[in-house]
Amino acid sequence: MELPNQAPAASLVFQTMLAHGPLSRAEIGRRTGLSSGAVTKATSPLLDDGWIAELGRRGGEPVAGRPATLVAVRPERASFLGVKITEDELFGVLTDLTARPLTTRRAALDSRDVGSVVSAIARLVKRLVPAQGPEIHSLGVTLSGDVDRCTGAVHHSPFLNWHGVELAHLVERATGVRTVIENDVRALTAAEQWFGAGAGISSFVLVTIGAGIGCGISLDGRVVSGAHGVSGEIGHLPVGAVDRICTCGNAGCVEAVASTQAIVEQARQVTGDTALTMEDAVQFGHDGHEGVRAVFARAGHAIGLAIASVANLVGPERIIISGEGVASYDLFEEQTRQTFVRQAFGAAADCELIVRPLPFEEWARGGAAVAAQTLVAPDRTRRATT
Amino acid sequence: MELPNQAPAASLVFQTMLAHGPLSRAEIGRRTGLSSGAVTKATSPLLDDGWIAELGRRGGEPVAGRPATLVAVRPERASFLGVKITEDELFGVLTDLTARPLTTRRAALDSRDVGSVVSAIARLVKRLVPAQGPEIHSLGVTLSGDVDRCTGAVHHSPFLNWHGVELAHLVERATGVRTVIENDVRALTAAEQWFGAGAGISSFVLVTIGAGIGCGISLDGRVVSGAHGVSGEIGHLPVGAVDRICTCGNAGCVEAVASTQAIVEQARQVTGDTALTMEDAVQFGHDGHEGVRAVFARAGHAIGLAIASVANLVGPERIIISGEGVASYDLFEEQTRQTFVRQAFGAAADCELIVRPLPFEEWARGGAAVAAQTLVAPDRTRRATT
Ligand SMILES: [Zn+2]
Ligand SMILES: [Zn+2]
Repeated sequence: MELPNQAPAASLVFQTMLAHGPLSRAEIGRRTGLSSGAVTKATSPLLDDGWIAELGRRGGEPVAGRPATLVAVRPERASFLGVKITEDELFGVLTDLTARPLTTRRAALDSRDVGSVVSAIARLVKRLVPAQGPEIHSLGVTLSGDVDRCTGAVHHSPFLNWHGVELAHLVERATGVRTVIENDVRALTAAEQWFGAGAGISSFVLVTIGAGIGCGISLDGRVVSGAHGVSGEIGHLPVGAVDRICTCGNAGCVEAVASTQAIVEQARQVTGDTALTMEDAVQFGHDGHEGVRAVFARAGHAIGLAIASVANLVGPERIIISGEGVASYDLFEEQTRQTFVRQAFGAAADCELIVRPLPFEEWARGGAAVAAQTLVAPDRTRRATT
Repeated sequence: MELPNQAPAASLVFQTMLAHGPLSRAEIGRRTGLSSGAVTKATSPLLDDGWIAELGRRGGEPVAGRPATLVAVRPERASFLGVKITEDELFGVLTDLTARPLTTRRAALDSRDVGSVVSAIARLVKRLVPAQGPEIHSLGVTLSGDVDRCTGAVHHSPFLNWHGVELAHLVERATGVRTVIENDVRALTAAEQWFGAGAGISSFVLVTIGAGIGCGISLDGRVVSGAHGVSGEIGHLPVGAVDRICTCGNAGCVEAVASTQAIVEQARQVTGDTALTMEDAVQFGHDGHEGVRAVFARAGHAIGLAIASVANLVGPERIIISGEGVASYDLFEEQTRQTFVRQAFGAAADCELIVRPLPFEEWARGGAAVAAQTLVAPDRTRRATT
C-alpha cells in the first residue's frame, strides 16, 4: 500500500492536508505554493485511490453556501501501529492515517533479551490489530539509545544492554508487518512536530527529563537525525558538574546530576537514607528539606545550562520540556528558567519554554507517527547523507 | 536583475549547475529528480536570458564525440560584492556569479562609529567595482554579532559597540547597491557549504577560533539561522571553567578560557609579564613554558568540550576548525581532539575534524556568497519563521 503518486508535489499536498485538515484546492495552492493545475494533478490520483475525499460533494450534493469544495484526508484509509519499549513495559497504539489513537494496550516485559522483547512485541501487535478494519500500513518501534532508522539496527541501547541488534528485521519477521525503528525521543519529536506542540512552528526542541535526559531537535519541519546516527544527546553535554561521574564515563554531564538516578543518589547522600526512592526525594523536597531542595535546584541548574546551550546553537522558536521528570518539575522549574535566561545569549533567551506532560501512550504514538512518515513523507525517513 | 523564472524547479536547476559545473540535461534531471520536460522548461528561460550556455554548441558546432550537450552557468553574467568588517579593517571582494574572486581590496577603519564605517564601505565598494564589466547584482556585508539578515538590522555587535543599527539600509543608500547583511560566521559557513569544505556533504559545522569563538551549522544544505536570529553561539556554551567570567557576564563559557584575549590574560598570569602579547604567548608555548602550555591546553579542552556538545546535539558529518586562532592551533590541537573524542557520545565521535585556515579574503567572499543567495536561492535568505 503506497500513495499513488510519489512526486514531491503529491507528497507535499498530502502532508499539507494532514497537517491542516479540510482545505479548498485554492487554499492548498496558497499553502504549498503550487499552481492550481499542479494541485489538481496531485489530488486526482489521491481521490481516485481513496486517500482523500471531497467533503463538499459528500452524498453527491454540493453543500449549500460553501464557497469552494473542500478536500480532506480519509483517516480510515490506512492504520499504523506504534510500540514504545521501556525498561519493564511495552506501550502500544493503533492509529488511523492522521495518527489519531484508536486503541492503546500495554504489556509487561519480564526479560530484556532480544528474543523475549521481539516476541512480546508480536503478541502486543496481535492484541492491537482489529479482526476487521483498514489495512495496517506499518509499525514504528521506538526505544532509547543509538538507533539507526535507515538500516533498522539498534547500534547500542544501554537500558536494554543491546549492541548491534537488527531490530526492524526481527520485528518484521515476527509480526508480518513492515517495521521501522527510531530513537524514542526523535519519534516523539516527529509526533509533536506533526500533531502536537510543534505543529505550525518553524523550529522547536523537545527535552525529556527522567531516567535519561534526551532531546529532539526539529528545524524547518525536519527532526535532526545526525550524520552518524547520533543527535539530541543533551544528557551528555558537559555543563561542569565534575564531582560526579556519568554513566557514559565522563565527568560533568547533565545526566550525572539531573537524571532520576542521579537525583536519588544525591538525595541519599544529603539525607543519609540509603534506601530513599525518587518519591521520597520529591516528598522531602515538598516538605522543605533544604539539602534535598538543593539537589533538585542543582539538577534544575544543569538542565537550564543544557537548554541554553541548545538555544545558543540552533535558536529554536520553542523548547518543550517533558518526560516522567516533569511530575516533580515544580522542584526545579524556577532554577531551570533562571539559569536558562542567564546563559541564553542575547535574543536566544526569547525562546519560549513550555512544560508539557506526555504520557507513555503519546510516546507509542510517536512510533505510529514515524511509521506514517514512511507512507506520507518517505524522503524524511532517509538519514541526511549524500 | 533577477533570474527569469522564480519557480522552485528553476532555482533548483540553477543551484545544481552552480554546485556541479557543466552538466548534461539528463544529469541535471538525475541530480534534481526532475523530469526531462521539467528540466527543459527550467533551462529554456535561463538560456534565453544568458544565465547559462550550452557548451556543446559553442561556436554553432556540436563538440565531436560528446554524448550530450552540456549546459553550464555563465560566470560573467553577474557580479557580487562581499565586505567583511573587522575591528580595524574592511576586507572586500568582487566575485563572478560562481563566487570566484575577481578583485580583493582592504581598507583601514579609523573609527567604529556607524557613519564612518558606512562611508568606508562605500569608498571600498567604489574601488572594487570595475569601470566596465557585468552588472553588480548585490553586496553582502558581514560582521560578528547578532545580525538579522531578514530585516537588515544589526541588533547587537559587541566589538563595534553597535545596538539596533539599520546597516543594510544605510549601506544601500551610501553605495547604491542592493545590500544584504549577515553574521560573518554564518556567511562563511554559507560559502563553505556552496564552494568549500562543506560542498557535497549533508551536514557540517564550521568553528572559528580567535578574538571570539563562533560556529555556523549547516544541515541539509541550509545554514541554521535561529528563530530569534541567534545561532551558532558556541563561544557561550557553559563548559564549566567557572573561575573566569566571560564578556557576556557568565562564568564557565568557552570564550572565557579560549578566546585570544582569555589566553593572553591567563598567560600574563602564569608568566607574570603584564605586557605579554598573543605572539609572546605562542612563543612561550613553542619554547616549552609549562605554565603557558597549560593555558593553551585548557583552551583546547574547552574547545573540545564545545565541539563535542555540537556533535552530540546535531551530529554533523564533519567539523571544520578555522579562524585566526588556527595559526597557533598546534598548541591546543592534541588536547582538543582528545577531549572531543572522550566527550562525543557513541558514534558522534565518528565526526571528522579538519583544520582549515581561511584568510580574511575568504570571509569577504562569504559576504559575496550571501549576496549570491539572494539571486539564486531567495528562499534561503528568509529566516525560518512561519
Ligand atoms: Zn555522560
Ligand atoms: Zn559567555
